[in-house]
Amino acid sequence: MSLLVVGSIALDSVETPFGLKEDVLGGSATYFATSASFFTPTQMVAVVGDDLPQSYLESLKARGVDIDGVTREKGRTFRWKGCYGYQLNEAETLDTQLNVFQSFSPRLPEKYRDARFVFLGNIHPELQSQVVDQVKAPRLVAADTMNYWINSSRPTLLKTLKRVNLLFVNDAEARQISGEHNIVRAARAILAMGPQRVVVKRGEYGALLFERDHVFACPALPLADVFDPTGAGDAFADGFMGTLATSDRVDGEMLRRAMVMGSVMAAFTVEKFSLERLHEVSRTDIRTRFSEFKRLTHFEDLGSLEG
Amino acid sequence: MSLLVVGSIALDSVETPFGLKEDVLGGSATYFATSASFFTPTQMVAVVGDDLPQSYLESLKARGVDIDGVTREKGRTFRWKGCYGYQLNEAETLDTQLNVFQSFSPRLPEKYRDARFVFLGNIHPELQSQVVDQVKAPRLVAADTMNYWINSSRPTLLKTLKRVNLLFVNDAEARQISGEHNIVRAARAILAMGPQRVVVKRGEYGALLFERDHVFACPALPLADVFDPTGAGDAFADGFMGTLATSDRVDGEMLRRAMVMGSVMAAFTVEKFSLERLHEVSRTDIRTRFSEFKRLTHFEDLGSLEG
Repeated sequence: MSLLVVGSIALDSVETPFGLKEDVLGGSATYFATSASFFTPTQMVAVVGDDLPQSYLESLKARGVDIDGVTREKGRTFRWKGCYGYQLNEAETLDTQLNVFQSFSPRLPEKYRDARFVFLGNIHPELQSQVVDQVKAPRLVAADTMNYWINSSRPTLLKTLKRVNLLFVNDAEARQISGEHNIVRAARAILAMGPQRVVVKRGEYGALLFERDHVFACPALPLADVFDPTGAGDAFADGFMGTLATSDRVDGEMLRRAMVMGSVMAAFTVEKFSLERLHEVSRTDIRTRFSEFKRLTHFEDLGSLEG
Repeated sequence: MSLLVVGSIALDSVETPFGLKEDVLGGSATYFATSASFFTPTQMVAVVGDDLPQSYLESLKARGVDIDGVTREKGRTFRWKGCYGYQLNEAETLDTQLNVFQSFSPRLPEKYRDARFVFLGNIHPELQSQVVDQVKAPRLVAADTMNYWINSSRPTLLKTLKRVNLLFVNDAEARQISGEHNIVRAARAILAMGPQRVVVKRGEYGALLFERDHVFACPALPLADVFDPTGAGDAFADGFMGTLATSDRVDGEMLRRAMVMGSVMAAFTVEKFSLERLHEVSRTDIRTRFSEFKRLTHFEDLGSLEG
């Protein structure tokens, strides 16, 4: 089933304790679509400036991503500059230049309007809502957001939340939206705002899927080497959405597998800089890692506890 | 199989955002043995002062704990005073009075020396080592420790580590012992110091079991109400050790179940103040919660990823 992503294409400059890379291809839609290419045909809506090398877009196309929804505007591409300390859990944003992103208004090519699975990357909640207006009969609409929109556009975000089926957040965002510190209470509060499901991403501690009557927990793969967490959240969202879209199922069991696949793709992403690792891995690597998660988490029923 | 615990019996004063309790029964050996009573006959070595109400010891005895190894000395019982903020993840110690604990030297009654499973609670590593001297042929010796001993008695701790099969630590302790920030590297470094296994307890984020060639991850049960984290680590250690001792098995599969049972007992402990919740629960509650962990974590194999 088709998967549609709306989000940013960016030129990232990222500094970690292990090195610095400047003006590398990044952005939420880029990470999502790169990872999605393993799962299902993916349609991409985004905007770039006249400075983005065409080869960057061609590399997405070569992976089977439909880039007909990517428009090129006069001006500079969206730029993000961030750095990570040794903890590698949260980025410090050093600089954000919206550039052509400032006047972005997502327009879906006609063929995209039949999309069944829709991922609204981290953009203004008003733009996210405009995308929902344009799709005809989606099976699942999922959204990402960030502290910036929660602060600056809360009423708009709350309206958008009523129109999405699933929200991806991290711990801090869940707390900020809900005003609750306890993560279970925070998730319940968000469920009461509209979405039927909330996925709380917790970096090296894994991720939680909350539904009204159920919780699923997936740990992160313990990695000895983490180089660059940029894009891990988008790769997670993609492994998740790609799994659902491939099966065209949104039920309890498939959502669990989606959580694990999200964790698989996130684990790959952080192992090297930028998109490097995602460009290397094969479907076999993905399957192997999925099995690793089973060994990491599964156990047998209790036998001999007496009484 | 018999389970031996050496550790503290304390009078705790604990303040959380939800209230204050003074001079309640606490201490690592107390939490461990209270929880252990669900699993297997437990022998306890500890010291109390002449101010500890005899009814506190009788309450342990009534739960089937063998308290013949508990000595009563002239003077005041070990006291700990701590408080927790809303995060409820780490206690701030306000006051520690060693009292009779200062001259404690663990002496095992003859019948304790055949213990197959031994838990060395958080006491001076020299005392932990003295206990190992006195047991004849243990199947598994596990130890807990804390930042205080890692700082003040590092050489002694390193000697003790060579004599234990398993170490329980939290994230911060693992980092402090190893000098590694990354938790996988930290665990590997500790494995190189002696123990064949390291369990890293991460509070609300769950726990990791590291062996030389394998990792197992168990999330914590997401709880909407956490009242008092005191003793959760000891209850975890007990659910873990109790599971192994009950089965008399120390193999991959039983270790996984032990990790889950540790998480089960820790989750009960934090739901009310002090030992209150552990005094309420039944074996059926424990079994039910164990099954909850299966629903929380299990997923089916990947089916339809093509390629």
